[in-house]
Amino acid sequence: MPSALDQQQHEFIFQFDRWLISYLENIKKNENYSGILLKSQEYSLLSGGKRFRPFLAYSVFKLFSSDVNKVVNLCLALEMIHTYSLIHDDLPCMDNDDLRRGKPTNHKVFSEDISLLAGDGLLTDVFYILSGDELIRPEARINLVRYISEKIGSMGMVSGQAFDMLASSPMSLQDLQQIHKLKTANLIQASAVGAAIVADCSEIELHNISEFSFNLGMAFQIKDDLLDHKDKIQDFKNYISLLGLNKTQEELARHSAVAKNHLALLNIDNTQVLSELVSFNLMRKA
Amino acid sequence: MPSALDQQQHEFIFQFDRWLISYLENIKKNENYSGILLKSQEYSLLSGGKRFRPFLAYSVFKLFSSDVNKVVNLCLALEMIHTYSLIHDDLPCMDNDDLRRGKPTNHKVFSEDISLLAGDGLLTDVFYILSGDELIRPEARINLVRYISEKIGSMGMVSGQAFDMLASSPMSLQDLQQIHKLKTANLIQASAVGAAIVADCSEIELHNISEFSFNLGMAFQIKDDLLDHKDKIQDFKNYISLLGLNKTQEELARHSAVAKNHLALLNIDNTQVLSELVSFNLMRKA
Repeated sequence: MPSALDQQQHEFIFQFDRWLISYLENIKKNENYSGILLKSQEYSLLSGGKRFRPFLAYSVFKLFSSDVNKVVNLCLALEMIHTYSLIHDDLPCMDNDDLRRGKPTNHKVFSEDISLLAGDGLLTDVFYILSGDELIRPEARINLVRYISEKIGSMGMVSGQAFDMLASSPMSLQDLQQIHKLKTANLIQASAVGAAIVADCSEIELHNISEFSFNLGMAFQIKDDLLDHKDKIQDFKNYISLLGLNKTQEELARHSAVAKNHLALLNIDNTQVLSELVSFNLMRKA
Repeated sequence: MPSALDQQQHEFIFQFDRWLISYLENIKKNENYSGILLKSQEYSLLSGGKRFRPFLAYSVFKLFSSDVNKVVNLCLALEMIHTYSLIHDDLPCMDNDDLRRGKPTNHKVFSEDISLLAGDGLLTDVFYILSGDELIRPEARINLVRYISEKIGSMGMVSGQAFDMLASSPMSLQDLQQIHKLKTANLIQASAVGAAIVADCSEIELHNISEFSFNLGMAFQIKDDLLDHKDKIQDFKNYISLLGLNKTQEELARHSAVAKNHLALLNIDNTQVLSELVSFNLMRKA
């Protein structure tokens, strides 16, 4: 029997792909949209990926509401943010990657200039689709734009990238945690809290969702570190290099337990999918 | 005796520099903000420039209100957008420029990766400061985010860049006009209409400001073409190559007249500065 998590993931991916294709069909009609720019964005948006951030937003939203139409634009926006950050990260002046998910990176298929613009465009359009979503209350739309831009801007994800690129060995645990918080946990938190804002959650609910998703994000990154650990010089940015294997596993367990605890504090009975998501991360092999 | 335009420009630049410095001082306190990222953004934000877009916003705003504090964040946001677009344009994969306003370009002083991130951060922070401005009515803040993101995103300025880079000779007048509209006029229009949104203008006022600023933006670009015309192969994207000198001057005069006409249609008596701005563009030598 499939778990509640499997079932919801299956149901979500089917819907998300339709939302994305319908979004892309719609913008194709706009004569001011450069055709090559759109092809480049489409290439990366449709190149697979787990849709983890939109799925998290969808799952948090479903805790509080079944009116799924309200969360469509947020899900699209989160995937657009993630995609913009990957396209820019892969550029020669950044990580200079030729492959992403087994396929040529965006600038290998198009060109560096188009990839740069594709990312710039995706990032800007996030705020266009969120601010124009009339299914979301005006106050909530402002809070959404404010919260997401804080998490991914110069005092968020972008600085996480800068700290990461400039990091040098040896580094302190505190510095490593800051990189992980800004680079990884911030967008995961924006996904969950964004959904809670759309669902008109109370302050206390927002607090618990925020703590849940921050800890899920940190656990997610630590698990990646455990799966990626190699005896390489660059590995000084890996938790294991700093803490050793045992302490790293303890940190993973601790963040996972805190995440589950904040789910329990929500005091609602349908948190099974999110709780399974925390457990799934603990056990995953890739 | 200085003109009304000179006087207002002088008064504005003095204030704008203080707003910008105070903004920069404030973000320096945020420990999540990468120090090098901030230095890189500061370098380009403080490297001079005419502050044309913020000045236009300020001048439009003053037609309707003297409560100048309400337009501070919009002015900062417009300069941040302009600066992000210049930093990205100058990158090696785009125009590969070493100098901007007589000084080394951002990536020459810092590095390509930091410059890329500096631009990404500035662009994102625009939506952070606009959405969080409590002096602006919530409805107006949404309209501002929506309008500006449309003008500068994938169906706006970003596509203008893509069209420009991919343009090949020979090109039609219609294609050239589309590039100028998206690349140049869109942000000038966003500046003026943005200010009108902050000032709670009526629909008819918004319409006249929109038409005024679109035509000012086109006139501005045509004047640049007149000043820049050289007998070079790349010059196929210049109005003069397409229309000849006489017709280009006629187009400049026509856009300037339409701009002034829409100022007159506002039916208010303090449009002198903006009217002088249209005339100034007609006569400028650089």
